[in-house]
Amino acid sequence: MLKGIHHVAYVVADLDRTIEMFERVFAMKPDRREVHETWGQEVALYALESGGTLEVITPLHENTPWAEFLRRHGDGIHHIGYAVDDVNATLEQLESKGVRLKDRRAQLSGVGWTVASIDPESTNGLWVQLVERDRRE
Amino acid sequence: MLKGIHHVAYVVADLDRTIEMFERVFAMKPDRREVHETWGQEVALYALESGGTLEVITPLHENTPWAEFLRRHGDGIHHIGYAVDDVNATLEQLESKGVRLKDRRAQLSGVGWTVASIDPESTNGLWVQLVERDRRE
Repeated sequence: MLKGIHHVAYVVADLDRTIEMFERVFAMKPDRREVHETWGQEVALYALESGGTLEVITPLHENTPWAEFLRRHGDGIHHIGYAVDDVNATLEQLESKGVRLKDRRAQLSGVGWTVASIDPESTNGLWVQLVERDRRE
Repeated sequence: MLKGIHHVAYVVADLDRTIEMFERVFAMKPDRREVHETWGQEVALYALESGGTLEVITPLHENTPWAEFLRRHGDGIHHIGYAVDDVNATLEQLESKGVRLKDRRAQLSGVGWTVASIDPESTNGLWVQLVERDRRE
């Protein structure tokens, strides 16, 4: 059901400092850097050669899940997005098996991915985000 | 420099329970399940269609970094392995730039990957493992 590792999402307190580190250490510059007011986030995306993406997120304000994550954990990995062929079809399959979902239908993420999350109670506490495969990625 | 997401490594307290969950929820069975006494670990590997791998690790005893991780964090993502073309050449490049390394030469991991880790002090606390790309994977 999970076809690949679509992206790794890091949440960091200081996006400039992280971007500077990626350039200095790994000689990598973000392909996109965007502010998404609706999601309360600023995001840098690094598309990797073999298809996966690094997503680095920083909160725009305190009243966001990102700020809450930083208060609890500090900088770190927030979730992994796993590629599936069809998010809504996957959600239906999961629901028919009694799996609890956080999102019952596919959502459009800030960066434009079609995503949905499973309730971590159904996955022993592991956060699994489903992301629709896209030939452009 | 980082060419792709080679694997996501989860550490869990109960490997049987995690394997059962992956089968029940995602209809996925591990491709390999192995005990590595030298590393104090039991590991299940799920090779994903698009090339990445899920590695699920459980400690064999308390005196392991895996048990230490569980005491601090509980079940969760331990690290991401990023694919590079040549681990030793990458380490040399990094060292020449003053990046601090945890491993100064490539190591052979329990599951047989050629790996090395960067000192998280050089990456703003993010744990980055380098893994040599392998056409078989």
